[in-house]
Amino acid sequence: MDINIVLAEMGKKAKEASRLLACADSAVKNRALLAIASELRSKTAALIEANAKDISAGEANGLSSALIDRLRLTEERIEGMAQGVEDIAKMSDPVGEIISGGRRPNGLQIEKIRVPLGVIGIIYEARPNVTSDAAALCLKSGNAVILKGGKEAINSNKAIADLMRSAIESAGLCKDCIQLVEDTSREAASALMRLNGYLDVLIPRGGKGLIRAVVEQSTVPVIETGAGNCHVYVDKDADLDMAANIIFNAKTSRPSVCNAIETILVHSDIADKALAKIKQRLDEKKVEIRGCEKTQSLLGASVVPASETDYDTEYLDYILACRVVENLDEAIEHITKYSSGHSECIVTENYTAAQEFVQRIDAAAVYINASTRFTDGGEFGYGAEIGISTQKLHARGPMGLYDLTSVKYIIRGNGQIR
Amino acid sequence: MDINIVLAEMGKKAKEASRLLACADSAVKNRALLAIASELRSKTAALIEANAKDISAGEANGLSSALIDRLRLTEERIEGMAQGVEDIAKMSDPVGEIISGGRRPNGLQIEKIRVPLGVIGIIYEARPNVTSDAAALCLKSGNAVILKGGKEAINSNKAIADLMRSAIESAGLCKDCIQLVEDTSREAASALMRLNGYLDVLIPRGGKGLIRAVVEQSTVPVIETGAGNCHVYVDKDADLDMAANIIFNAKTSRPSVCNAIETILVHSDIADKALAKIKQRLDEKKVEIRGCEKTQSLLGASVVPASETDYDTEYLDYILACRVVENLDEAIEHITKYSSGHSECIVTENYTAAQEFVQRIDAAAVYINASTRFTDGGEFGYGAEIGISTQKLHARGPMGLYDLTSVKYIIRGNGQIR
Repeated sequence: MDINIVLAEMGKKAKEASRLLACADSAVKNRALLAIASELRSKTAALIEANAKDISAGEANGLSSALIDRLRLTEERIEGMAQGVEDIAKMSDPVGEIISGGRRPNGLQIEKIRVPLGVIGIIYEARPNVTSDAAALCLKSGNAVILKGGKEAINSNKAIADLMRSAIESAGLCKDCIQLVEDTSREAASALMRLNGYLDVLIPRGGKGLIRAVVEQSTVPVIETGAGNCHVYVDKDADLDMAANIIFNAKTSRPSVCNAIETILVHSDIADKALAKIKQRLDEKKVEIRGCEKTQSLLGASVVPASETDYDTEYLDYILACRVVENLDEAIEHITKYSSGHSECIVTENYTAAQEFVQRIDAAAVYINASTRFTDGGEFGYGAEIGISTQKLHARGPMGLYDLTSVKYIIRGNGQIR
Repeated sequence: MDINIVLAEMGKKAKEASRLLACADSAVKNRALLAIASELRSKTAALIEANAKDISAGEANGLSSALIDRLRLTEERIEGMAQGVEDIAKMSDPVGEIISGGRRPNGLQIEKIRVPLGVIGIIYEARPNVTSDAAALCLKSGNAVILKGGKEAINSNKAIADLMRSAIESAGLCKDCIQLVEDTSREAASALMRLNGYLDVLIPRGGKGLIRAVVEQSTVPVIETGAGNCHVYVDKDADLDMAANIIFNAKTSRPSVCNAIETILVHSDIADKALAKIKQRLDEKKVEIRGCEKTQSLLGASVVPASETDYDTEYLDYILACRVVENLDEAIEHITKYSSGHSECIVTENYTAAQEFVQRIDAAAVYINASTRFTDGGEFGYGAEIGISTQKLHARGPMGLYDLTSVKYIIRGNGQIR
């Protein structure tokens, strides 16, 4: 059947399911989440079996070992997924919150309340744990979800989606609150991106290429997530040991994530001393430094010459670009030009420099003297996150349950006219 | 020159201007707004002269008298525009507000603050007052704006934009905080809709056709505004005089606006009595009723038979569709099918029916026993509005200054790493 028709049908079912789900009590939603966690545990063997098909197909298709690792489900990882869903069940329900309200001079009582968005689409890549994470967050916030994972994980995703659907049905919710697009073609992705009228928002989770494709092709509203070209600027008044420590942590504690840094900027007044300390730390993990001319002259032959492209690249690897700048202005200009608006840091003991940096840098998270690795829903105290928004509309920074909601005004009168 | 290049150049200037404007103090922004108001007053004669060119071109092109009226600037209307800008100067500045914050267990101090969106595009039709209204709201909330009005109003818009640009420059702001696209072609509109990287959001203000075109063609994030297919449902337990009064007000006090109603639904148990009272009121303004079969049989020959299309139409005129329904469920189903999600009303004295209606109806504003005409920034106590959002992402309902902002996290540490 035409994939557009298939998706319109799924959209219709999701919309209908979302209407009931929007009115469901927290107790019912939590029961459904606990049923999912319990099913994940009891079906562990079957999930690993389904996943094995994906793994062997991936190996046959020559997927990189990193990708195979992301794809793999183990007992431990499935237990982690179940615990993740249980954690979401424990979070407080944002739906129904009265945000503000009051009585107008004409006696009208106006109340602004929190409601679900409706139907959320999630497009993601090879990690099967996203299937249960994303579905659980959508369910808790009262939204129906249409999931579309990568073709590499299709057998795993089908198995997870199937068990979630029966689990929530057994808990008294409509199983169409969670649906998986089983067609993993590009056409199916395109059809999902144009499912206006059914989909209230589409959230891509994955690499830069996926996110760009979704932003460009979608007619449905999109929340951009994830791309992180993050910087640390070492000011002339920085504590240089602290700077080296923060840079080491932000680059090497987990290079593959979006809140890791990709470029450092170092004030020329202290570049000599600072770079020596920084390089010493980075050498512990054999981080390749790609430097500007001044960096090269200060650090010598081990530095790879940096090109314009380097400043624009999210390496997600043990590689770090480095540029010596004349002053704070030049650092801010560099960041303004290359930043993806995710997380930016200044290391300084200077009050005015710190104030100016946080004021002028336009990013979701701006740090003074701390690692960019803290940009994370859990670290911010929000619990599980659906992603980190790098756009300014609707949500910015780590997105939790509240960011999956909208508002509604309720106006109570006794016959008022205007 | 290629319109895409022209717009990219405007976008670049706007982006640069927005960076400075984002850091501007309220006092400076207010001074700029008062300078605009003062210039509007002192240049009244010149504005009327420029407007006269649009009026005569419009008459020559056979524009309807309603459109000519919307296009026309008078001394009184220009004074109204100046007062509108002054009112915006008096409103409190949302930028810099600390929304929430606190200290994390590791000592990090996290603060969530309100920042401008950046660069806002506004696409609108023939009303020249939108030029100053929209620019003033964007300026106050710290956003640069690119305005694109209809070709009918181009001379008026140019004159207004020119005086606003010199006014804000004299007050110490960059004049590129406000720019007008002087090319009124469709190509220029399309280029604006694809100005990713420069435009943070695009807000269409106007009729259904304009809004649909923007939603379908834009790759920039859009906030949908305005379309209002609104309903009043008269429940079996309604106070029928109140119902007739609310319907009369919601239909006839200003039929051309989006919060006016287009269809009424009447419970069959009270349809006989209710429709008689309602018709009596509507007859005062010669409102044409397009009714279902039951309405026809109850009200007789004056009722025009309603077709499916009628329920889907925003008449914006002295026409009202009417359908008799069997119960609350049927009313909710009808509204769910045809509503544009703007404003919906139930008239009832029944507690459970009222509760169910507000819970199940998915619209920006849901009313019990009051006219839908109150969905308005001023009536809600928000001051001037940039439009009424009928989408669920970012903003819903009347959009004021707060809805033209985003957030930023500031994280202060003393060397924390993860």
